[in-house]
Amino acid sequence: MLSRELMDGLGYITYGLYIVTSSWEGKDNAMIVNTVFQVTAEPPRVAISVNKESLTHKLIEKSRVFAAMPLAQDTDLPFIGRFGFRTGRNFDKFAGLSVRRGSLGCPIVQDHTISFLEVKVEQTVDVGTHTLFIGKVEDGACMISGGVPLTYEYYHKVIKGKAPKGATHS
Amino acid sequence: MLSRELMDGLGYITYGLYIVTSSWEGKDNAMIVNTVFQVTAEPPRVAISVNKESLTHKLIEKSRVFAAMPLAQDTDLPFIGRFGFRTGRNFDKFAGLSVRRGSLGCPIVQDHTISFLEVKVEQTVDVGTHTLFIGKVEDGACMISGGVPLTYEYYHKVIKGKAPKGATHS
Repeated sequence: MLSRELMDGLGYITYGLYIVTSSWEGKDNAMIVNTVFQVTAEPPRVAISVNKESLTHKLIEKSRVFAAMPLAQDTDLPFIGRFGFRTGRNFDKFAGLSVRRGSLGCPIVQDHTISFLEVKVEQTVDVGTHTLFIGKVEDGACMISGGVPLTYEYYHKVIKGKAPKGATHS
Repeated sequence: MLSRELMDGLGYITYGLYIVTSSWEGKDNAMIVNTVFQVTAEPPRVAISVNKESLTHKLIEKSRVFAAMPLAQDTDLPFIGRFGFRTGRNFDKFAGLSVRRGSLGCPIVQDHTISFLEVKVEQTVDVGTHTLFIGKVEDGACMISGGVPLTYEYYHKVIKGKAPKGATHS
C-alpha cells in the first residue's frame, strides 16, 4: 500500500497516449500505453513498459518488434476502449479499421494516429510486473501533418474516460 | 543521419520537464530531463535516461540515488537554463535557491517544482550514449497542491527556450 504522500509525488508526471502493436506467427495485437520513452537520440532508441500478463507482451517477446503510434487529440473513448480496456485473446482489435503492415511486420493503425515508429527490440529488462522493451527505431513517419497529440491529462479531463480494472492486461 | 521521415515520426511524443538531482561525497548536481518514466505501479518504479558525459550521471552511478521534480508551468527560461544549459562542474546550480536534503540524501529543489520523488537505483542499463537508471520510488510528496506541470510543448511554444549545443551534458 502506497502512502498518499508518495502517490501525490507521482501525480505530476506528464504522459501521452499511444497504441502499441506487435505481430507473431500471424497473430496481431495492440494495447494502449501512456509512455514511449526516447532514451537516446543517436541512434534513436525508445523504451516501453509492458505488463507481463498481456498478450502484446507475448507477441513482442517472440517477434522482438513493436510499433508505437501517438493518438490524436480528437480520439474518442470507444476507440481507446477497443485497445485499452479488453484483451485481444478472443477479440480482433483491428476489425473495421484501416491498418497497413509495417516494414518490420507490425500493424500500423491509420485511424486517430498522428505518426508511427517501428522498433526492433535490442534489450529487455525485467522490472517486476512489467518488462521494459528497449529498441532501435528502424522506421517511422508522420501520418497527419500538424496533428495534436492526445495527452493523458486531456484524456482524463476532457474525454473523461475511466479505465476499468485490468485495463493494462490488454 | 536520420531521415526526415523518421524524425517526423518521433516528433509527437509527449514530454514533461523535470529537474533531476543527485549527491555523492558532498558534491551535489542537477540537470533537466524531459521524461520520468513510471515503469511499474506496484511497487512504484521509475526510469530516467542520463547522458554518460554528464556530471549528474557520475553522481547517480556512485551514490545509486536520484531525485526527480516536475517543474511548474510558470517556470522561467533563466531558471531552466541554470539547470539545463551549463555544466555543474565549475558552477553551483543551487546557489540562491531554496533546497532541502531528501531522506536518501538528494537535493530537493523547492523553487518552481510541484512535487518530488526520491529513488533508489536498482538496475542500470547501457543504452549507448546514455544510461537508463531504473529504481524504486522510496519517498515523494506534492509540494504545490493543484500545480500545473510544465510540458515540453508549453516550454517550446510559450517559454520559447532554445537549448544550445551540449545542453544534455549538464
